[in-house]
Amino acid sequence: MTTPTLRPPSGLNFLIAAKRCEIDALRQLSLTSALVNVTGRLVHSLQRERGLSNLFLASQGTRFGEPRQQQISECRVIEGELRRCFDSLDTHTAHLGHGARLFSRMAYVLHGLDALPALRQCVDTQGWTARQATDAFARLIAGLLAVVFEAADSASDPAISRQLVALFNFMQGKEFAGQERAAGSALYASGRAERGEQQRLLHLIDSQERCLEVFKEFASDELATLWATADQDTMAARAELERMRRVLCTAAPGSPLDASQSLPWFDCCSLRMDRMKTVEDRMADSLQRLCEHKTQLALSELLDFQALQPAAPGADDALSFFQEPVPEHVAGSGQAPAYGAQVDRSILDLVQDQARRLQSISDELDTVRASLNERKLIERAKGLLMAHRQLSEEEAHKTMRQMAMNQNRRLIDVAEAVLAMADVLPERRR
Amino acid sequence: MTTPTLRPPSGLNFLIAAKRCEIDALRQLSLTSALVNVTGRLVHSLQRERGLSNLFLASQGTRFGEPRQQQISECRVIEGELRRCFDSLDTHTAHLGHGARLFSRMAYVLHGLDALPALRQCVDTQGWTARQATDAFARLIAGLLAVVFEAADSASDPAISRQLVALFNFMQGKEFAGQERAAGSALYASGRAERGEQQRLLHLIDSQERCLEVFKEFASDELATLWATADQDTMAARAELERMRRVLCTAAPGSPLDASQSLPWFDCCSLRMDRMKTVEDRMADSLQRLCEHKTQLALSELLDFQALQPAAPGADDALSFFQEPVPEHVAGSGQAPAYGAQVDRSILDLVQDQARRLQSISDELDTVRASLNERKLIERAKGLLMAHRQLSEEEAHKTMRQMAMNQNRRLIDVAEAVLAMADVLPERRR
Repeated sequence: MTTPTLRPPSGLNFLIAAKRCEIDALRQLSLTSALVNVTGRLVHSLQRERGLSNLFLASQGTRFGEPRQQQISECRVIEGELRRCFDSLDTHTAHLGHGARLFSRMAYVLHGLDALPALRQCVDTQGWTARQATDAFARLIAGLLAVVFEAADSASDPAISRQLVALFNFMQGKEFAGQERAAGSALYASGRAERGEQQRLLHLIDSQERCLEVFKEFASDELATLWATADQDTMAARAELERMRRVLCTAAPGSPLDASQSLPWFDCCSLRMDRMKTVEDRMADSLQRLCEHKTQLALSELLDFQALQPAAPGADDALSFFQEPVPEHVAGSGQAPAYGAQVDRSILDLVQDQARRLQSISDELDTVRASLNERKLIERAKGLLMAHRQLSEEEAHKTMRQMAMNQNRRLIDVAEAVLAMADVLPERRR
Repeated sequence: MTTPTLRPPSGLNFLIAAKRCEIDALRQLSLTSALVNVTGRLVHSLQRERGLSNLFLASQGTRFGEPRQQQISECRVIEGELRRCFDSLDTHTAHLGHGARLFSRMAYVLHGLDALPALRQCVDTQGWTARQATDAFARLIAGLLAVVFEAADSASDPAISRQLVALFNFMQGKEFAGQERAAGSALYASGRAERGEQQRLLHLIDSQERCLEVFKEFASDELATLWATADQDTMAARAELERMRRVLCTAAPGSPLDASQSLPWFDCCSLRMDRMKTVEDRMADSLQRLCEHKTQLALSELLDFQALQPAAPGADDALSFFQEPVPEHVAGSGQAPAYGAQVDRSILDLVQDQARRLQSISDELDTVRASLNERKLIERAKGLLMAHRQLSEEEAHKTMRQMAMNQNRRLIDVAEAVLAMADVLPERRR
């Protein structure tokens, strides 16, 4: 009994299907990078609102009311943009597997945005301290940055992933700078050096610098240079920032600080953050252009593939599958293969080229993503503490930060130590 | 100027969207595991055809013609099934990002299947040696196993990924057993021990055992036991296999071998492979059931989510976002939150639970996937040799295998050594 072999769907169909997958993933990335762009602008706007809210609260509501209201209006406009952008992702997106994490982060952000009016009311009525307000804004901003992180972690193109990693680290570094601004401003304003806050400042400076290191590693030369230049151009401002940092961090605990330096510190930090924002904007633009460029490239490859006609292979031609692939330098040397074998052979070549390219993309992605591991390890350690010591997320984070400060170690080292204990802790699952 | 806050898409929408992503990915996995099932059956059928083709060629076409033809018919039926399965994936699949690699592997397989009739003709006319035919079948089977590998590598659910990793390693181990059968059969038939072939046999036995180790590590206890039992039940056959292996591998190169042992060797190996197939079938069934179970679970969670009504949060309730999450042991202790806060708070809790769960899924996936790294490293090293020493894939693989044999090292160690040289080799890209 001989069943005829079915052969309509040739390898060419799947060569094309694979290319379509790439294109869909790139289009997805274009949407995601638009989302990252709006997210970055909202983060910046919220950082400014946080700063102004602090100044407003510090002045017992006597100053900065007007600029704070203007800033709130700006935030609302960008928030509207972000919500529309979220909406369009929900509607236009195939529900990709990795999308679950992105959507889950977005759900969290939306809860935070819904809660913003209530937060503002607490500031309006001066019902919260500056520190409470700062922490609340920081939590929302952390949620927004987590969206950018997921975008970077799920990108399927190494060049784009690289830029997203650079951008995420830059944004995270800028947020540490923002927290430094708030903490330093409050410390100056208090008029007295305090050990815990000084430690916190040192950690924020350290974390900030490590983020900028990673940024430099992954950014394009052009953007890394742009940031280096921006930093150079304002050398005087940087020197002033470093001087004020030194005063803040080296004052003996309990000794007096000049409270009038609070506003100059604030302005000096703000200048730096605004400068960072211009670099960030350039990165977001360049990311968007890169996504479009890559999509166009893939589309034109798709057209090339679609123009190919699969040859019905004769018995001899078909055997090429089982024979050694022609090494590249021989294939390029002008030896013409027999007519008829040409087309089919070249599709097989294309299939193998594609497989190789996809493999090297995947290898490169693994490398780029490894750089996101630090954050993942910290998250994992936090989860472990929450599960085994019955802590809330906030408590777990504070515990680790406290361990880091007490032992004068980096947060990542503490996370690794916590994870190393995992084996001796009782398992919850399985 | 105050722009009203847009708030229709609440966090709940994205909680649901994230769940939909999970469901779509699980459905995808159901299709993929059906594909893996058919792939496994075709591999087994081709392994039998390869064996019978070898015996047919070794007998100069005087024996095994009839069973070979029957086997070819069986192969054709399953090939038809596989092609239909490929088709349905192309049509029913959102073009997921990781799908590109899977489709690219499928394109390669289809080329191989198109070339099968030509291969069979070479066997019919005895135009090829047994070794040539074996290598040709092995290449096609390697392509089919690569499909299973990609399925395992792209699975988004840790439990399913774990089973796919177990299954892939089992199938790969069985293929090494099949190559051992062919090589040993030919070596006995040749009547004379030969150093190169003896080395090759030892490597095949070693590779096989390492695959089965990984299988044991990742298989469910039930399936690992099933295989252990199947192996025990036929202890006599296993002892005979080990005896024949010893004779083959320890004979002094050049000394005579008993050619009449070729067929008993073949039968002994075949018995083992058939036993492996029954375990493999059980794994494929269990995989399919697991996919369905997980999909049902996720669907019922989706229904739960959809039944929730987002509360329009009052100002006070909304602030829960900025306050410490209630630790699990407190939340479960019966303290009733104020009415109104209940619903909204519980959605925020759900969002945070989901985020934590997705994070732990992602961590676990990283761990499972790490086990696929060995193969990836070998592929990457091969790619490096191809690029820098202008070798074909086949040549690169042979070179590495040769290095492993000469230096008495495992292939993975050679791959790591090759990759360690990468830095001193000239870069092609960037």
